[in-house]
Amino acid sequence: MSATAVPFPGMTQSAAVLDRPIILGIVGDSAAGKSTFAAGVAQILGAERVTVISLDDYHRHDRAERKALGLSALDPRANHMDIMEQHLRLLRQGQPILKPVYDHSDGSLKAPEYVRPGDYVIVEGLHGYTTRAMRDCYDVKVYLEPEEDLRVRWKIDRDTSQRGYDESEVRESLQTRASDSDLYILPQRTFADMVVKFVRPEGRFDETGPHLNVRHTLRPTLPHPDLSPILEGSKDKVSLTLARDIDGKPVDELEISGDLDDKRAKAIEDLLWNLIPEASHLRANLGQYMDDREHRAKMSHPLALSQLMITYHLVKAAMGHYAI
Amino acid sequence: MSATAVPFPGMTQSAAVLDRPIILGIVGDSAAGKSTFAAGVAQILGAERVTVISLDDYHRHDRAERKALGLSALDPRANHMDIMEQHLRLLRQGQPILKPVYDHSDGSLKAPEYVRPGDYVIVEGLHGYTTRAMRDCYDVKVYLEPEEDLRVRWKIDRDTSQRGYDESEVRESLQTRASDSDLYILPQRTFADMVVKFVRPEGRFDETGPHLNVRHTLRPTLPHPDLSPILEGSKDKVSLTLARDIDGKPVDELEISGDLDDKRAKAIEDLLWNLIPEASHLRANLGQYMDDREHRAKMSHPLALSQLMITYHLVKAAMGHYAI
Repeated sequence: MSATAVPFPGMTQSAAVLDRPIILGIVGDSAAGKSTFAAGVAQILGAERVTVISLDDYHRHDRAERKALGLSALDPRANHMDIMEQHLRLLRQGQPILKPVYDHSDGSLKAPEYVRPGDYVIVEGLHGYTTRAMRDCYDVKVYLEPEEDLRVRWKIDRDTSQRGYDESEVRESLQTRASDSDLYILPQRTFADMVVKFVRPEGRFDETGPHLNVRHTLRPTLPHPDLSPILEGSKDKVSLTLARDIDGKPVDELEISGDLDDKRAKAIEDLLWNLIPEASHLRANLGQYMDDREHRAKMSHPLALSQLMITYHLVKAAMGHYAI
Repeated sequence: MSATAVPFPGMTQSAAVLDRPIILGIVGDSAAGKSTFAAGVAQILGAERVTVISLDDYHRHDRAERKALGLSALDPRANHMDIMEQHLRLLRQGQPILKPVYDHSDGSLKAPEYVRPGDYVIVEGLHGYTTRAMRDCYDVKVYLEPEEDLRVRWKIDRDTSQRGYDESEVRESLQTRASDSDLYILPQRTFADMVVKFVRPEGRFDETGPHLNVRHTLRPTLPHPDLSPILEGSKDKVSLTLARDIDGKPVDELEISGDLDDKRAKAIEDLLWNLIPEASHLRANLGQYMDDREHRAKMSHPLALSQLMITYHLVKAAMGHYAI
C-alpha cells in the first residue's frame, strides 16, 4: 500500500532512503500559475512517477451553493479543510485516498476518484498551508505570487476560456474576493520555503509570458544550493541579494532576468544538475519538454530555472538529505 | 474534532470512559436485513447520537460498469476495500470522513458526503469483516443470516420496489451471485461475536415478519449476559443450548420463539435493562418506537430482543467494560 520515493527510476528500491512519497506544496492566489508550475515540475521528475492533487477538489459547495451562501472559494469555510488535512497526512504516509472531485468546467461536485500516491506528490491549491498539521506534511513549500496585474490578466484569460465566465464576471469576482485573499491566502506566504514571483520587465507592460523576470525569495527553512559560481557576470541578469522580506525577516533574493542569454542559463542549469548527480538522467525529461516547439516558445529561462530549483530540493529530499 | 462516546445523554462528558465512538458492525449477505436492524438499534440508542454507515457506498463501479466487467457487488474487487478499511480506522479515532455515495435507486456514484461520527457508529455492509484491520475497528460484531428462503423473499421485495429491478432480474442475480456469496460473504461469519438468524416457525412457510423465530449464536469473544433467570418456564419459547457451530467451535445458542407471550418478553427485557442501569432511560426510546402502530405491528419480540441484546453490549462497551 505504501509508495516509495525512489530518487530516480534506475535506482533500486533498497537504495531509496525514504519509504514514503516526497510532497511538494504549491500555494498561491487564484490564477497565480499553480497548475502550470506543477505540470512543469511533474514533467521534469517524470509524469508517471508524480501524482498531482488540486486542492480545489476539496470545495464543500458547488458554484451555485457558494453564490447562494455568499461565500468565495477563498474562504476556508467553503472548503473541507479537515478532510484536506487528513488526506495530506494519508498521502504522506503513502496511503491511497478517495479524493473528492470539483469540476471547474461547470462548477459541480462529482463522484470521488481513487488516488494512489506516486513517488512524488505535488499538492497545489489556495489553502495548502493553512494549518500547522498541513504544513508539517510537505517536504518543500513554494508560494507563487506573480505581480498583481499579471495575475489579473492570467485569471481573465483562464476563467473566460476554460471556466465559462465572461470578463465582467471575473472582474467582479476579483473585487469581491480581494478581502478574502488578504485574509486567507496571503497569510500563508510566510510559511513557504521559497516565494516565486514573476514580474514584467520595467516599462514592458504587455509582457505576459516568455520574457518575464522572476524573483525567488529564499528562506533559510531549506538548505538552498550555493549559487555563488553563477553570480559572476552581469548583475542585471542574475543577482542574489540579502534583503528584508515584507514580514521583516532576513532572506536571500535571487533575481533572474527574462532576457538571460542561453549560454548563461545553461551554466546555471549545469550547476544545479551537478549538485544532484543521482538525478542527472532526469535532464533528458527537461530536454524533451523543451524540444516541443510550442512549449519552447512559451518556456522562459526564469520559469525553467525556477522549476529546476524546486526539482533540486525534491531530489535532495528523496535522497533523505532533509530528513535529519 | 473527536467524538466522545457518552453512554447516555444525561451523563457528563467527564464521566465517559472512552474518548472515541463505539462501533457496531452488521455484516451479512444482500437483503439479510442489515439496514432494518441498524435502524432499530439506532432508534434505541437515540438517532441523534448514532451515525449509520452503509458500506455499499464503497462500490468502486456504478451498476453499468459492474455489468460490463462481469463483477457482482459481492466481489471485493468491485469495492474500495482499502478505503473502507481506512475510513473505519478514522471513524474509530473519532475523525470525520468524506464518505463516497452509491445511489441504489439508479445504481450511480454521486458526490461524497461529509460524515462526522456520533457517539455510536453502526457500520453495515457486505464486506465489513474482510480484513483483520477492519475487524479490529469494531466493539461489537454481528452477522445476520436469515433462513435462505426468507432472504430470497426479502431481496425480491426490496429490489423490485426500491432499486428498479424486476423479479426475473433479481432471481437471475441471486443465481449468479451464489458463488460470490460463498466465497466472499459467508467466510466473514466466523468473526462475529453474535450470529443472528431469523427462521420461520415449523410448517409456517408464509411467515415473513412479526412471528419469525430467532436464533442467536453467541461466541465467547464477548462476555454475554447471564441469561439463566429467563430460561425458567417453557423451553419451546426461550432456550439456551450448548452447541457445536458449523465451524466446529463450541457456542451457546439462544432461541427465542416468535410466539413468545408479552409477559415473558417483558421479563427478558427487564433482565437486560437491569444489567445496564446507566442506560435505563433509553428504554423510553424503545417504548416510543413500539408506540408507533405501524412499527408495533411489524415488530416481533425476537427482533426487539435481538436489538436489545446488541444495545446491551454497546452500552457496556461505552462504559469501558470491554476495554480491558
